[in-house]
Amino acid sequence: MNICYTPQARYVLGVDVGGTKLATVLATRDGEILHKVRLPTLAHRGPEFGLARLVSMLKQNLSETGVALADIIGIGVACGSPMDAERGIILGPPNLQTWNPAPIKARLEAEFGLYTQLENDANAGALAEWLFGVGKGKRNLVYMTMGTGIGGGLILDGRLYRGTNGNAGEVGHMRVVFQGGPLCGCGKRGCLEAFCSGPAIARRTQEAVRAAPAASADALLTLAGQPETITAEHLFAAARQGDALALRLVDETAHYLGVGLANIIQSLNPQVIVLGTIATNQGDFFLDRVRRVVQRETWPQLSSVVEILGSPLAAQVGDYGAISVILQNLP
Amino acid sequence: MNICYTPQARYVLGVDVGGTKLATVLATRDGEILHKVRLPTLAHRGPEFGLARLVSMLKQNLSETGVALADIIGIGVACGSPMDAERGIILGPPNLQTWNPAPIKARLEAEFGLYTQLENDANAGALAEWLFGVGKGKRNLVYMTMGTGIGGGLILDGRLYRGTNGNAGEVGHMRVVFQGGPLCGCGKRGCLEAFCSGPAIARRTQEAVRAAPAASADALLTLAGQPETITAEHLFAAARQGDALALRLVDETAHYLGVGLANIIQSLNPQVIVLGTIATNQGDFFLDRVRRVVQRETWPQLSSVVEILGSPLAAQVGDYGAISVILQNLP
Repeated sequence: MNICYTPQARYVLGVDVGGTKLATVLATRDGEILHKVRLPTLAHRGPEFGLARLVSMLKQNLSETGVALADIIGIGVACGSPMDAERGIILGPPNLQTWNPAPIKARLEAEFGLYTQLENDANAGALAEWLFGVGKGKRNLVYMTMGTGIGGGLILDGRLYRGTNGNAGEVGHMRVVFQGGPLCGCGKRGCLEAFCSGPAIARRTQEAVRAAPAASADALLTLAGQPETITAEHLFAAARQGDALALRLVDETAHYLGVGLANIIQSLNPQVIVLGTIATNQGDFFLDRVRRVVQRETWPQLSSVVEILGSPLAAQVGDYGAISVILQNLP
Repeated sequence: MNICYTPQARYVLGVDVGGTKLATVLATRDGEILHKVRLPTLAHRGPEFGLARLVSMLKQNLSETGVALADIIGIGVACGSPMDAERGIILGPPNLQTWNPAPIKARLEAEFGLYTQLENDANAGALAEWLFGVGKGKRNLVYMTMGTGIGGGLILDGRLYRGTNGNAGEVGHMRVVFQGGPLCGCGKRGCLEAFCSGPAIARRTQEAVRAAPAASADALLTLAGQPETITAEHLFAAARQGDALALRLVDETAHYLGVGLANIIQSLNPQVIVLGTIATNQGDFFLDRVRRVVQRETWPQLSSVVEILGSPLAAQVGDYGAISVILQNLP
């Protein structure tokens, strides 16, 4: 069968594969999203079910917009790692372990005859920020999610840098404590993610509340009820109220993140670092603290050229990421 | 005047500008160095004197080999930062502060009519290792000097990555201690360079000897005479003799370096890391210790694809670096 890649076509299809939901979009080549379908992944039903579901979702994108296959450039797919990106096979990422293997490229190409490219979601996010977000048109961009985990993607010299076997950009697993440190989900110790992901911030706050005198933990406990239900959101809410313990923990978080970013900046001399999720939600209240640490921890010739920004695109980064996997290749 | 860049020509000129010596070479386009001239920089006499000296050295390269200007691709120049690489102006690097500014590109282009390109010596070293050294033909290479300072250069996706304003690759100034740490020459605290450069290793060893009981410092003091004359070379010599204190310090050095490299590997997923100077001189005695740390501190999918190597090219990296500045551009 013929697999078509049509760079001059007017539309693109995108597939965002997550552990709880699947999304497919049809967009123009300029990134205007015209149609979206969303359904639960039902991961327990396995990859055959999921791939069949995606096929019917994509057919719905096409039929409800009336766009013909011949008008589609290709299909971009974003999903968590591990994966064999080249062969387009999903290999059971942490939140979708039943999809191992899930040969999504082969399946979609066979079904639609459209060139399909798989990319990990952190790289897809970096592409989205570079093509459609606050990093639009920047030559050197570092993208970093800051949610359940800390993932990253690198745009260097105006193109996605994947590394030797597709694992570049794992900036969340740089060590920021040199000896020991908390155990990270990845098995290493002292990773940036083990301090600054949402769950890590919650854990650090819970520990601090348990260790603190009752009076100083009052604001956090009033918000959360009890130590074990404290989340990162509670921490930031208490800090915005001026609570001293919460402010100290927010400053600590900014310090860890800022020093991690400083290390990245010293190596990669980027123009922009885009921080997703928590950093985006908390805005300048948090980002200004991070910027001050970075300012102190990097050389002036490096700090003077780099912006540290939240992502207004964050809520749609999955959709834009998926289509960007294809659109990155356009001239 | 016409400035000629002749990619199909057979020869290349290289200029290595150092604080104590100047070197110029004439080489074939395949990197065979046919002729070399070396003279002291005499930095105190300033850039006019030095640039005139370089012009006459290059003329000597040409006259003594009988190679015509028309047979030269261009002139590559390597020097320490800071510099304006694009305009080819040296801006008083630490060991050559009198050359500020030294418009070397304009001067050599005016004199010879040959396209001249200036590059910082760490980037030139990376190019040399990639074109002629142990990293030959690798797509993703990290080069790191480990002498008076720790500099670095990055080859990513098969080309030099300079960063937004030419400051990428400053891996020696990643922090490897998160709070405090020794003051680095760059003004920051806790940089990798403040632990693992030659002077930093010497300082750490001197401090350890002063703090140690007399008996355990015996081997180091026998080699060096007194604490304040201990060098990194003494440390490695004592460690090779099996001295316990020295072995502990070598292991610590390998730990700092290894964790620093692990952070680089997690971000950049390189195929090869080439370590110069001390790491090269000490060979596997030191490198095996570093490799073990890296093995422990990086994900298997990253550590399995990266080699950590010394540089057999190290003694000539200045010459090869200078010509590589031009040869990198050839198809």
